[in-house]
Amino acid sequence: MRQSSSHALLWGIFSNGNESPRVGLASGDHILDMAAVAELGLFNFDVSVFYEDHLNPFIALGKEITNGALSQVQSWLDEPGAGPLADPSLWVDRKTATVHLPVRVGDYTDFYSSIEHATNVGKLFRDPENALLPNWRHLPVGYHGRSSSIVVSGTDIRRPHGQVKPNHYDAPKFEPTSRLDFELEMGFIIGKDSELGKPISTAEAPDYIFGLALFNDWSARDIQKWEYVPLGPFLGKNFASTLSAWIVPYETLEPFRVPGPKQDPEVLDYLQYEGNHNYDVHLEVTLTPAGGEPTVISRSNYKYMYWNMLQQLAHHTVNGCNVRVGDLLASGTISGKDAMSYGSLLELSDGGRKDIVLKDGTIRRWIEDGDTVTFRGWMERGGLRVEFGEVVGRIV
Amino acid sequence: MRQSSSHALLWGIFSNGNESPRVGLASGDHILDMAAVAELGLFNFDVSVFYEDHLNPFIALGKEITNGALSQVQSWLDEPGAGPLADPSLWVDRKTATVHLPVRVGDYTDFYSSIEHATNVGKLFRDPENALLPNWRHLPVGYHGRSSSIVVSGTDIRRPHGQVKPNHYDAPKFEPTSRLDFELEMGFIIGKDSELGKPISTAEAPDYIFGLALFNDWSARDIQKWEYVPLGPFLGKNFASTLSAWIVPYETLEPFRVPGPKQDPEVLDYLQYEGNHNYDVHLEVTLTPAGGEPTVISRSNYKYMYWNMLQQLAHHTVNGCNVRVGDLLASGTISGKDAMSYGSLLELSDGGRKDIVLKDGTIRRWIEDGDTVTFRGWMERGGLRVEFGEVVGRIV
Repeated sequence: MRQSSSHALLWGIFSNGNESPRVGLASGDHILDMAAVAELGLFNFDVSVFYEDHLNPFIALGKEITNGALSQVQSWLDEPGAGPLADPSLWVDRKTATVHLPVRVGDYTDFYSSIEHATNVGKLFRDPENALLPNWRHLPVGYHGRSSSIVVSGTDIRRPHGQVKPNHYDAPKFEPTSRLDFELEMGFIIGKDSELGKPISTAEAPDYIFGLALFNDWSARDIQKWEYVPLGPFLGKNFASTLSAWIVPYETLEPFRVPGPKQDPEVLDYLQYEGNHNYDVHLEVTLTPAGGEPTVISRSNYKYMYWNMLQQLAHHTVNGCNVRVGDLLASGTISGKDAMSYGSLLELSDGGRKDIVLKDGTIRRWIEDGDTVTFRGWMERGGLRVEFGEVVGRIV
Repeated sequence: MRQSSSHALLWGIFSNGNESPRVGLASGDHILDMAAVAELGLFNFDVSVFYEDHLNPFIALGKEITNGALSQVQSWLDEPGAGPLADPSLWVDRKTATVHLPVRVGDYTDFYSSIEHATNVGKLFRDPENALLPNWRHLPVGYHGRSSSIVVSGTDIRRPHGQVKPNHYDAPKFEPTSRLDFELEMGFIIGKDSELGKPISTAEAPDYIFGLALFNDWSARDIQKWEYVPLGPFLGKNFASTLSAWIVPYETLEPFRVPGPKQDPEVLDYLQYEGNHNYDVHLEVTLTPAGGEPTVISRSNYKYMYWNMLQQLAHHTVNGCNVRVGDLLASGTISGKDAMSYGSLLELSDGGRKDIVLKDGTIRRWIEDGDTVTFRGWMERGGLRVEFGEVVGRIV
C-alpha cells in the first residue's frame, strides 16, 4: 500500500476489529499501526509505549523521541515504494478503524481568549455597555474544566438535565436544557511535566506543547446562566466535551504561523513573547439534522485568538501551578469579527433571538435532538495542506 | 507490639526508610504495613494493590473488599495479643514514616456549601446587602479545581506571585500575594466509577463515597479578586492545595451523624434525601510562626454544612457528569455562626481589617512567610473517639 507523502501525520489511538487499542499515525485515509511498525525493530527506544491505549507514555519520552519517530516514518514514506512501510499489514483503513480518546487528560483548563467571543458573550450575559470585563485585556482569563467527561470524536452526547431559571420563572425548575450549544475550540496537549512552584516562561512554553486538536466544549446555556455566578461554569459544561481522535504535532504547525492581534494595553513582562505565535487554521462548523444534509453554519479561524498558547501557558504557571503530560489547555470559543465566524450558537443566534436557516429550510436557534455537529480544521500554504482530525458529536 | 483496639483505622500511603511506598493503616501512633500483612496470605483478594503507591486500585476493588479488609484487621486487633498482627515487623512508627499523597486525584471539585462562609465572603467581595446570591439556596454551588497541585500534608507551600490590582492601582501589577489565606475544608474521595450520562441519586450516593479527609484549599485573595469574574477562581487557588495523608472510611463516620440545618426554600426533588447526613466533626486551625508556638485561631465543625455530601454528589452528576475512583469533592470553607468558627483569614480578619493576635503577641491578618498552618479534626461520642489525619503546611 503506497501512501502519499503529502499527508501530514497525526498521532492517535485506534483499534481494528478485535485487536487491542494502540498508537497509530493517521495519514490521509489510512492509519499506520505503530505497534506493528515497532515489531520491525527499527526504533532505538522502548517501543512498548506503542502498545498502550493512550498516548501519554509515548509523549512522556520527550520531543526528541516523538519528533524523531515522526521524521523517521516520514522519511520512509518519502522513499520510492515507502521502504519498510510498503507492507500492507502495517496499514489500517481509517474508515473502518475504531478511534479512542488519544490522551488521558489529567487536568483540563479552558481559556476565554477570543476577544470577539468574550465581547459577544459579555453583551448577552451581562452589560452591553461594558461587555469586556476590566481584567480581560490584562490576562488570559481561564477556568478549570472537567476531565472525566471528555470523550473522543464520534461519541453520542446526551442532552443534560439541570436547574434552569428563565426570568419568567419564580423559582428554578429541573428540566432538560433547551439551550444546548457547541463551542468551537482548539486545544493543546502538554508534552512535559513541570515542577510545582516553577513557572514556565513564554520562551520555554514551546518545549511543553506536544500538539493540537479540535475540541468541542458543549454548553447548556440555560443551566450555565443560573449557576455561573460567582464561581464560574460547572454543570452547564461538564456533561461532556469532545476531543478529536488525532493530535497534530506542535512543530507541524510551524509553516502556518501568523502575527497575532496587537495587544493594547501592553501586557505585563511575563506575558511578553518573541515572534509570531498565532496560526492560520481554517475552521468550519456544520450542523446536520437527523437524516438530513449538512449545513455550514460557521467559518472561523484560529488566528483570531487575542491570547496565544505561550501566553496561556505562562499565565497558567506563573503562580507556580504545575502541568503534567496529557493536560489539555483549550482556547475557548474561537469567534471572528463577522457574524458568520462566530463559534457558538449563542453568538450565531444572538442569544436565541435570530433564526439560523439550514439547507432543508428548517431553522435552529439551539441544537435539537438528533442533530450532529461537526468541526473541521485545516491549514494551507503554498501547496502544503494539513488537515486536523474532525470533531463529531450527535445529540441523543 | 500491642495496638489499642480503640483507635480508628485510617487508610494511606507511606514509606519507611528506603522501602517503596505502599498501603498502610494508621492506628494511633503506628502504621500497619498492609503489604507486609498481605504476605501472611490471610486475605482472599488480589493483594498486589497493597504494593501500589496510591490507594486507587485498592479502592476500586469495592466496599465489600475494602470494608471487609478493615473489619478483618479490626477483629485481629481485638484478639488478645492482636493475633497474627502481634509481629512487630508489621508495624511502623508513624512519627518516622514518610507519608505520600494517598490517592491519585483525577478530578477535584470544590463546593461552597457553608452558608455562613458564603454569606461572609459575599459581604466582603460583593454586596453586603445581597451577600447570598439568588442561586445559593437552590443548589450546592461548586467549581472545578486543579488536581496537579494537590500535595500531601507536610509539603512546604511557596508563596505565589500573580497579577493583583488593589483599588489604588491604575493597572494590575505582578507581585507576590500579600493576602495569602487558608480554607478549612473537608473532602470526600470517590470510591466507585459512575457512567457518563447516568446521574447518582442521593440514595445511591453513599455507595460512591470511599472516605473523608481534612483539606486546605490555600488561597491568594488579591490574585483571586482581580481574576475571578466571570469564570471563577483560577490562579488564586491552583498554586497548591493540601490533602491529609490519611483517609477515614465513610462508614467510620456513621456513629457521628447529626441532622443538617433546615433548608429553606425546599430543595428540588433530586436534592431531597432521607435521614441525617451531617457529621459532628470538631475542627481546629492553629497558626505557628517560624520558631514560635501554635495559637488556635479557629474552632469550627463539619456539622455546619448547609449542603451535605449526598446532595453535592447528586447535584454534580444530575446532568450526566461522571465521577471516577479517586476524584475529590471538597466542602468549601467550613464556617460557623460565631467569629471564632470562621474557616479562613478572610473572614477571621474581616477582609484584612482586623488583627488576629497570636500567643507571642505578634499579629496576623494574612499568612506570613515561615508560618505553619495546621488543621486537626476529631469525632467524639460516648467514649468513642476518631481522629482525622492532620493537614500541615508551611509557607516558604
